[in-house]
Amino acid sequence: MLNLDFHPAGRHFLQIPGPSPVPDRILRAMSLPTIDHRGPEFGALGRELLGKVKNVFRTENPVIIYPASGTGAWEAALSNTLSPGDEVLMFETGHFATLWHRMARRLQLEPEFIGLPGYEGWRHGVQADMIEARLREDTGHKLKAVCVVHNETSTGVTSDIAAVRRAMDAAGHPALLLVDTISGLASADYRHDEWGVDVTISGSQKGLMLPPGISFNAVSDKAIEASRHNRMPKSFWAWDEILEANQNGYWPYTPSTNLLYGLNESLDMLLEEGLEHVLARHQRWAAGVRTAVQAWGLEIQCQDPAVYSPVLTGVVMPEGTDADDVRRIIYERFDLSLGTGLGKAKGKMFRIGHLGDCNDLTLIATLGGCEAGLKLAGVPLKGSGVTAALDYFAGHSLEAAR
Amino acid sequence: MLNLDFHPAGRHFLQIPGPSPVPDRILRAMSLPTIDHRGPEFGALGRELLGKVKNVFRTENPVIIYPASGTGAWEAALSNTLSPGDEVLMFETGHFATLWHRMARRLQLEPEFIGLPGYEGWRHGVQADMIEARLREDTGHKLKAVCVVHNETSTGVTSDIAAVRRAMDAAGHPALLLVDTISGLASADYRHDEWGVDVTISGSQKGLMLPPGISFNAVSDKAIEASRHNRMPKSFWAWDEILEANQNGYWPYTPSTNLLYGLNESLDMLLEEGLEHVLARHQRWAAGVRTAVQAWGLEIQCQDPAVYSPVLTGVVMPEGTDADDVRRIIYERFDLSLGTGLGKAKGKMFRIGHLGDCNDLTLIATLGGCEAGLKLAGVPLKGSGVTAALDYFAGHSLEAAR
Amino acid sequence: MLNLDFHPAGRHFLQIPGPSPVPDRILRAMSLPTIDHRGPEFGALGRELLGKVKNVFRTENPVIIYPASGTGAWEAALSNTLSPGDEVLMFETGHFATLWHRMARRLQLEPEFIGLPGYEGWRHGVQADMIEARLREDTGHKLKAVCVVHNETSTGVTSDIAAVRRAMDAAGHPALLLVDTISGLASADYRHDEWGVDVTISGSQKGLMLPPGISFNAVSDKAIEASRHNRMPKSFWAWDEILEANQNGYWPYTPSTNLLYGLNESLDMLLEEGLEHVLARHQRWAAGVRTAVQAWGLEIQCQDPAVYSPVLTGVVMPEGTDADDVRRIIYERFDLSLGTGLGKAKGKMFRIGHLGDCNDLTLIATLGGCEAGLKLAGVPLKGSGVTAALDYFAGHSLEAAR
Amino acid sequence: MLNLDFHPAGRHFLQIPGPSPVPDRILRAMSLPTIDHRGPEFGALGRELLGKVKNVFRTENPVIIYPASGTGAWEAALSNTLSPGDEVLMFETGHFATLWHRMARRLQLEPEFIGLPGYEGWRHGVQADMIEARLREDTGHKLKAVCVVHNETSTGVTSDIAAVRRAMDAAGHPALLLVDTISGLASADYRHDEWGVDVTISGSQKGLMLPPGISFNAVSDKAIEASRHNRMPKSFWAWDEILEANQNGYWPYTPSTNLLYGLNESLDMLLEEGLEHVLARHQRWAAGVRTAVQAWGLEIQCQDPAVYSPVLTGVVMPEGTDADDVRRIIYERFDLSLGTGLGKAKGKMFRIGHLGDCNDLTLIATLGGCEAGLKLAGVPLKGSGVTAALDYFAGHSLEAAR
Repeated sequence: MLNLDFHPAGRHFLQIPGPSPVPDRILRAMSLPTIDHRGPEFGALGRELLGKVKNVFRTENPVIIYPASGTGAWEAALSNTLSPGDEVLMFETGHFATLWHRMARRLQLEPEFIGLPGYEGWRHGVQADMIEARLREDTGHKLKAVCVVHNETSTGVTSDIAAVRRAMDAAGHPALLLVDTISGLASADYRHDEWGVDVTISGSQKGLMLPPGISFNAVSDKAIEASRHNRMPKSFWAWDEILEANQNGYWPYTPSTNLLYGLNESLDMLLEEGLEHVLARHQRWAAGVRTAVQAWGLEIQCQDPAVYSPVLTGVVMPEGTDADDVRRIIYERFDLSLGTGLGKAKGKMFRIGHLGDCNDLTLIATLGGCEAGLKLAGVPLKGSGVTAALDYFAGHSLEAAR
Repeated sequence: MLNLDFHPAGRHFLQIPGPSPVPDRILRAMSLPTIDHRGPEFGALGRELLGKVKNVFRTENPVIIYPASGTGAWEAALSNTLSPGDEVLMFETGHFATLWHRMARRLQLEPEFIGLPGYEGWRHGVQADMIEARLREDTGHKLKAVCVVHNETSTGVTSDIAAVRRAMDAAGHPALLLVDTISGLASADYRHDEWGVDVTISGSQKGLMLPPGISFNAVSDKAIEASRHNRMPKSFWAWDEILEANQNGYWPYTPSTNLLYGLNESLDMLLEEGLEHVLARHQRWAAGVRTAVQAWGLEIQCQDPAVYSPVLTGVVMPEGTDADDVRRIIYERFDLSLGTGLGKAKGKMFRIGHLGDCNDLTLIATLGGCEAGLKLAGVPLKGSGVTAALDYFAGHSLEAAR
Repeated sequence: MLNLDFHPAGRHFLQIPGPSPVPDRILRAMSLPTIDHRGPEFGALGRELLGKVKNVFRTENPVIIYPASGTGAWEAALSNTLSPGDEVLMFETGHFATLWHRMARRLQLEPEFIGLPGYEGWRHGVQADMIEARLREDTGHKLKAVCVVHNETSTGVTSDIAAVRRAMDAAGHPALLLVDTISGLASADYRHDEWGVDVTISGSQKGLMLPPGISFNAVSDKAIEASRHNRMPKSFWAWDEILEANQNGYWPYTPSTNLLYGLNESLDMLLEEGLEHVLARHQRWAAGVRTAVQAWGLEIQCQDPAVYSPVLTGVVMPEGTDADDVRRIIYERFDLSLGTGLGKAKGKMFRIGHLGDCNDLTLIATLGGCEAGLKLAGVPLKGSGVTAALDYFAGHSLEAAR
Repeated sequence: MLNLDFHPAGRHFLQIPGPSPVPDRILRAMSLPTIDHRGPEFGALGRELLGKVKNVFRTENPVIIYPASGTGAWEAALSNTLSPGDEVLMFETGHFATLWHRMARRLQLEPEFIGLPGYEGWRHGVQADMIEARLREDTGHKLKAVCVVHNETSTGVTSDIAAVRRAMDAAGHPALLLVDTISGLASADYRHDEWGVDVTISGSQKGLMLPPGISFNAVSDKAIEASRHNRMPKSFWAWDEILEANQNGYWPYTPSTNLLYGLNESLDMLLEEGLEHVLARHQRWAAGVRTAVQAWGLEIQCQDPAVYSPVLTGVVMPEGTDADDVRRIIYERFDLSLGTGLGKAKGKMFRIGHLGDCNDLTLIATLGGCEAGLKLAGVPLKGSGVTAALDYFAGHSLEAAR
């Protein structure tokens, strides 16, 4: 029998950019007894959730909740709005944008993948001007959707979605705007309605602090209209039956009841604290972590300060150091999990998650583990990042508004 | 803030045919901290699970685990093996067979739905001879798959899948055999390999005693071969990438880590007890419950004793009684949830679940609640079902083999 | 390594008169992280608890909470108010009265033990007239305290404490009145102030639905005054330092923090429902269970209907049947734990607990297990107790006031 | 209703020298359903526990487990072995020695309290030569017991108990040796049998990583013999009935069942890892923390390196700084609880706990919080303690023997 308690004494530090640590309060909520998903209590739960969840997406429109993990919500967005053979414009911000592009091809779409070149291209956000230029060329409006990643989890870059909207409007192009904010929701500022997004895709295991297993599509009227006529075969992901059943708080098939208990608790926690406060917390943590990286004299993956991610920070290794060797040392010696470099960034950098159920001292511990591990790996450091971050946190208190 | 503790004093009796009550042992396993799904412990967990899970399907072939609820596994089976426009033969055993048929149409397949007529048709299992006859007619082999439900959750009928296999072989027809045993797995005898099933579909929230949220496809070589060439757009459900990542115990996208903890515990519980013993438990419970229904002088939904379900029993109301009124009284007065009549059985019957984490006295309580509720609803009863079931259980001990 | 999951499939029925089943809501509260018992949050918790707990004792006076199980609270009551050599009057209602008497002797008191004779004596409550008569004789007031058990857990008799108070007043005797309601609190009507009790002793694992581990002394001014001058060596149990530290919500030594989380939740549950409603629930359950025992044609241990316990019912076996054999059969065949006969009642009867986190169907299951087990043991039964209780519960709904 | 989730985002750092953080694995074990403490499973649990617990005390003799917190075990040790009026020799190592002395007086003993003078006296361990000298004077053997604290939780000094034993032997004095290792057990080296201790007192909420609520007396034959004749009134604490019931794994009164589940898990965790490895972990953590204090240029409370505690470290503030002001800043800004200065050390120092379910990075976080808080409080620091500790931990890996 496998012992699932993998870790030695003390608490494992899970500082990857998701799944993020699940607070005990949410674990407790998830342990409530499973109920009849066709009974009256479930309806009450469903209606409560479907109302509250709109707040974190900043939308007045419906939010669809899938009993499936985040990748499924990508597929749902594409398969509800597009038809086989449709052309779509996707922007390469990093590994997850690349995977989404790959999915589009597997779903028999014709995605066009634009972006800045090479690994260096992954160190910036979406270039709205490139999108605008491409859309202007598309005078026949063959491009049916623009697909971008808000918070690119593989790089630590949070792109400017409002700018993409403005670019589309400037080009006068009717394509749908589909945005992945799986790792941005409830950690980075996000505004579904204000930014005119047609489908927002998100997941549970990041800012919502839940285990993986449920995911989301926030939709616009225009997206719903598209879903009525598109020709992609769809059933599980189809919005129509879900939206209809959701009217009364139910789902057309079995929902993930216990994860929904967790979602309800998560939303209570976020809304009690106030979403603005939650976002400010993340910005402050990110600033502290960047201060440490700069004190070490290492490069941050994201090269444009305007789009630094509040959720995670990529730390670039000097030439000749394999970032995964550093990660392994840190893991084995300090029971700290960091995110690996993915795709073009493989081996070049590691990622520190600073999201969700976290606090200053957890990050000090994390930076401490990094600093010691970097030294053990022989990476030359300019100074102490831990003490720099400590000074930053001590000097910048979060005026708790609650 | 919504209070999720919906029930009055004492423990709610959830005796629907799934979700079944989740044992504390599984809830505790699910509360282990979420880990990095790309880290070394996850690989160990994945390999362990993917090996053990084969035992409950009785297969040597791969079993694919989806981070999505059971309806998704239906779609996975269809979208991996079939192409838009393909004809498939489906047998109407009840409401879930009907929903699966509806899904096939939404996925742009051409399903042919055969079965016995009317509501009475829902009181029997799959008629293998009808399938054989239809397949013999299909000399051009236009039917690409035969789709049947093993344990029809809406009626309490457990069809004879081996007979369907024999019928297909007798007809010499090359169609794939796709079987839904979402509510049969680990409660009713099921043999993926021996019965020559090509895709077995199952879910977590029934005999596996987990909350809903993960689901399964057990596959045959023939099914995998079909998936290499079929033309349904597929990505999330596609077997190829999952099978490849599973080699090392991982998934191509984020799995439902905490539900997988629960699955590991569930499999340990089932395999420690011994699957044969688990199945014998269910058969004995079902016999006790039917004894009660017969003592009341009411009809069992399933009219063929050879295919009585060990998982649930449908109880038919006399003419003029709305089964949902009875259910409501029982729910309100005795905090007991029973399954509603679905589709053609709406209002005609209710369903008693006797599966998973259950025991004799829980069923006595359940039958007690039914008996009192039936009387309160004015349904004339011939005798006491509770005492009949008590006598049955007392007279038929389960020789525990462990 | 010992597997602590002792039970087979399904939920064990723990129907002893305490420890009673702990509701999940309380288990979840108890799993909150342990905090610094000298920090500011602990003070807030302590003040909240010390205020709320008075409600269940119906007192305006202080209630002392010990990090020790109920037997400790017996010792606390004696050692705070009495001195070695003091004479006390104790009434033999059953086994627990006998154990308390034994404790008094071990603490070097001079207890006088009065009561009705033999095993039959254990089938009635406290005889207030016998106490009054004895107190009238004690013209020198050598008796310093009268000690009685409110709800005698070994017999299912709930004595009339108001009558004892009246007897003491009628005799004009200044002795202190010490009352054990370990198993009566929050299940049977109890009024510390109104009944003029000087020390009320209680515990956590009965009507409060907590695991064992904390216990209580509710005190009167007269008792506190006695504690200032008594000469029993005392430190851990001493009220003075606890009362002083309690002013601010703290304890002089380490309290049982996690059980106090549970107590807080328990009090919220009881007070949200309303204590009157809780007590009515218990009375109704007890009536249903007695209906079953009478239908079986068996005797109830308590022979005086005026003092039937709402918490438990003793079921007397016919001559020649060993009650513990019956209990063993029921335990082994039906996974149901019943209370054993204690002391003079050993082998003569068993006890059914109907308290705390319970409901109608749990009791139907319990009575079902008893009925089947009695038959298996060869005990002749007049009729079915289960169906009698079902009829009782169906015919007597609890008008839920909440 | 009081919200018991007192803390802001992320996990509270509870680094007081007990209660120590309870690992999830233990919390999960404690949430198992309460069972009948007179039933067969309880006996199995009791026998298992009573056997395993001897290992952590390093004794072959019985260990008594009380359903009461640690202070009760002090009283148990005194009340089982001594009689009112007995003279005992106690050594003042700090606040807890002082409280135990106070208890001895309240129990009508005649304790003589020796020690080094003043606050400075609290910066050293037990002086065995002073004990020897005093015992040599006591030619009439009026001193019935020597009472010392092994790990003084208020100062961070771990006294040499073997030396005390040698002193008593050298003096040829028959007094009993009573030792409090409430905060030392399972964290600091302790040997009940080898050191000839007569009663060892311990508790649950320190090295055993449990919530508070159970406590221990490990006893010698000589202590048991004394308990047969001593004249202190005793009942709840009396060893005789407990030892008798323990033969079969039971207790004479209701034990703390759920905490015993936790104890069973704790013992499995400690014995699986190996007690030697556990102790080595604590020594290494303590060395790392002291390295930090020295880097800050602050004084460690304990002035004798031979008796530095592996469990906690007292950090002395410079003249003019109130340690509780520093603690308050750290608590409010960094959600970190540290131990306050007690008694003579009030305001002069704070205490860092480094015990139980802890690891390097948790201590780095803790030292980070201290360092930032000290700076915010205006305490001048010589250098960074965090980086010193990081270097220490990186340079001294714990060769895990398991």
